[in-house]
Amino acid sequence: MTDSPITARGQDFAAWYQDVVLQGDMAEPAEVVKGCMVIRPNGYAVWEILQRELDNRFKATGHQNIYLPLLIPQSFLKKEAEHVEGFSPELAVVTVAGGKELEEPYVIRPTSETIVGHFFAKWIQSYRDLPLLYNQWANVIRWELRTRMFLRTTEFLWQEGHTAHSTHEEATEEVLRILDLYAEVAEDVMAMPVIKGVKTRAEKFAGALKSFSIEAMMQNGMALQAGTSHDLGQNFGKAFNVQFQSKEGKLDYVWQTSWGASTRLVGGLIMTHSDDKGLVLPPKVAPRKSVLVPIFRKDEERAQVMEIAKNLACDLGVHIDAREGMSPGAKFFHWERLGIPVVFELGPRDVASNSIVMKRRDTGTKEIIRQSEAAVKLSATLETMQKDLHAAAKRRLKDNTVLANSIEEVESLVGDGKFVMAHLKDDPETDARIKSFKASVRNIPLIDEYDGPGKCIVTGENVGRRVVIAKSY
Amino acid sequence: MTDSPITARGQDFAAWYQDVVLQGDMAEPAEVVKGCMVIRPNGYAVWEILQRELDNRFKATGHQNIYLPLLIPQSFLKKEAEHVEGFSPELAVVTVAGGKELEEPYVIRPTSETIVGHFFAKWIQSYRDLPLLYNQWANVIRWELRTRMFLRTTEFLWQEGHTAHSTHEEATEEVLRILDLYAEVAEDVMAMPVIKGVKTRAEKFAGALKSFSIEAMMQNGMALQAGTSHDLGQNFGKAFNVQFQSKEGKLDYVWQTSWGASTRLVGGLIMTHSDDKGLVLPPKVAPRKSVLVPIFRKDEERAQVMEIAKNLACDLGVHIDAREGMSPGAKFFHWERLGIPVVFELGPRDVASNSIVMKRRDTGTKEIIRQSEAAVKLSATLETMQKDLHAAAKRRLKDNTVLANSIEEVESLVGDGKFVMAHLKDDPETDARIKSFKASVRNIPLIDEYDGPGKCIVTGENVGRRVVIAKSY
Repeated sequence: MTDSPITARGQDFAAWYQDVVLQGDMAEPAEVVKGCMVIRPNGYAVWEILQRELDNRFKATGHQNIYLPLLIPQSFLKKEAEHVEGFSPELAVVTVAGGKELEEPYVIRPTSETIVGHFFAKWIQSYRDLPLLYNQWANVIRWELRTRMFLRTTEFLWQEGHTAHSTHEEATEEVLRILDLYAEVAEDVMAMPVIKGVKTRAEKFAGALKSFSIEAMMQNGMALQAGTSHDLGQNFGKAFNVQFQSKEGKLDYVWQTSWGASTRLVGGLIMTHSDDKGLVLPPKVAPRKSVLVPIFRKDEERAQVMEIAKNLACDLGVHIDAREGMSPGAKFFHWERLGIPVVFELGPRDVASNSIVMKRRDTGTKEIIRQSEAAVKLSATLETMQKDLHAAAKRRLKDNTVLANSIEEVESLVGDGKFVMAHLKDDPETDARIKSFKASVRNIPLIDEYDGPGKCIVTGENVGRRVVIAKSY
Repeated sequence: MTDSPITARGQDFAAWYQDVVLQGDMAEPAEVVKGCMVIRPNGYAVWEILQRELDNRFKATGHQNIYLPLLIPQSFLKKEAEHVEGFSPELAVVTVAGGKELEEPYVIRPTSETIVGHFFAKWIQSYRDLPLLYNQWANVIRWELRTRMFLRTTEFLWQEGHTAHSTHEEATEEVLRILDLYAEVAEDVMAMPVIKGVKTRAEKFAGALKSFSIEAMMQNGMALQAGTSHDLGQNFGKAFNVQFQSKEGKLDYVWQTSWGASTRLVGGLIMTHSDDKGLVLPPKVAPRKSVLVPIFRKDEERAQVMEIAKNLACDLGVHIDAREGMSPGAKFFHWERLGIPVVFELGPRDVASNSIVMKRRDTGTKEIIRQSEAAVKLSATLETMQKDLHAAAKRRLKDNTVLANSIEEVESLVGDGKFVMAHLKDDPETDARIKSFKASVRNIPLIDEYDGPGKCIVTGENVGRRVVIAKSY
């Protein structure tokens, strides 16, 4: 990593983001593989934390992990009409393997509903086999034209849940349970507020009855879809002939769900909290919560400082940055860019006065505390910082969410980087109007925090509540 | 999962293995994707445990996880002559993506040395950047003709370590450190004894100076290479121009290592411990250590038994199998096939006498113990079982390892399913002689447990010690 300056957010948000990602050791473009990135150590460590937080919750709600093949016979994609239409333009196709042209090409999975459908048909015969609650951690490829690290890459890492149920009601419960689970990880772990809602028909997953999403606001006011949960109805059940015998002995197609969250979450995290100095990580997702930088000039100072530093670091469970040939200033700069929540400084004067300096990454405030209090102060500070980051992001979301009552108003406000709440009919044609000025309907919130029903700003028809309109990644 | 019978090992070892894998809910063939498998819940849960055991050790020895692209430009493979020759026949090639023929095809990684070389050249300039100690958890594809679940599949999951060093000595230390780490996980966690050794020149990794392996003996006497660690020398450094400036200001190529262990470990685990009743899992790799099956006929028995069962299950931290409409016998059968180390039975008579029945999966022995002792007995039994399984496997390895002093003796003993120790020159031509009767030199053990130097049974030349010859997976 080179120590290039970080572009200010106000100057060029996209350049700022790229700088933060690079200088934070999160990722770098893999320019030799179109649209791909290398996930660097700090970025992968954050992803591992998110994986564990999600995986623990999946398991606690009865899901089991499995692993399905990366390659899917091309013909499988064609079995669900909407699905193939949605994914065809983005497929990477293996046509040669083992030195021979393949009779039937394979596609690299863009998502696994089709191969899941094939296996569900083998695994499910009776209501006794249901519900089937599976998840897989995997890589997928979608050949994207415009890519951006973490937010949209040709290959990405994700988890995809696939479940089968005997009733639509039970499937719907599952879809919403997972939406809540995603929202919980976003809010409580990532300190990233989200709006839970249902996607419009134009924006739903290719092959689903209904899609639900959590949408977060980035610091430039743009929306990021951070997780989706789909009610697949019986569409894939019919396409892959997944039937079960009910308690009453009748044959019926299963009701399926699928849901996913990806390395995109890491991008959302960065764009929610980081600042012009670089990466800011909420303590719960920081691979390293705290570091201690010892400061000394002369040799006799060194011995004194290092002795106390070692004792403290051991008590606090933190890493000492004892690198030689690097100034304390360079070290502070290094840890700041990596987003370490709390950095301690310990110099000869601190040693003499039994104190230590504690610096918070988000506010930049320094506090001189007694060494004996350091452990208690550290844990309290990490807790406060987690809450403060969440509160700040919540405030930003609130401050930048506005109401609009005409299409012109929507266009103008969306251009200012706002989440615009408007009454809009769920119809591909009204979605198209919004798309005409490069924004989109993000979702129709599950909870109405505004004024209930109203007239669609395009068609004049009555609709139940306002939708969220924004520019998005 | 259907409840088909399990073929006896003595009758047909390959059929037995397939039955154990299927009935143990470990995996099933993904017949629609050539040579691939679906990893089922029990199999994936075991893999997660192995991942954690390996990953903790990688991190404790200073390695960081990163993630590199799945796709590699085809031209990269050609930069290291031996490497391309070794892997070309096994490649899966993406020629079409995003609806267009690609100008340069991508291969799906069969392993990542080449793309690692590309990035190391970007990341390494000076001795200060070294050592670079990276690992990635990933899927890879090698188009294999003859496949077998877990042991050899077209796609498999693994970790691949990639490190760069400023001296050959340091790289060699790394290679051996990882070999030890693999052996520790095999022996201490999987209860699977292994022989650490260096591969012959004919068997080394394509592009390496030297390869090291751990080799385990399966119950039919066949060998399984369970992990490899490669000294790549400066081969990839030269191919990808990975140079660094030394402390003295001189430019030199880095010294690299790579090492991998895969889902193949799960296959080795199964073939080491399982029996004619199905899967046997050493407690340390069992996703669920113990289950309690309540037994009752009448309704009043049910209430009594379930109350005590719930209390005990809570104390012991074990799952109660309270499924309705399933006989206790069917439940025992179910858990036996899944390889649960200890199953408790609790019936009305046990309730009356404050006792409980504890059954060990490996020995099949039942013990009636007091309920108050159950927790202590369970943990002691799990510990004993772990040791006993390791001891049994060690004894089997010892009993089936024999010395041979002529090529004819080797051929005959290898046919009997033995590990045959013989003096053999490390030369592709002598390897070819061994291959002529469908066996191979597994490795040259690091520790000589036999009679030191001797004359090569093919060439008559002096060699330092005996090598391990066996049929292998």
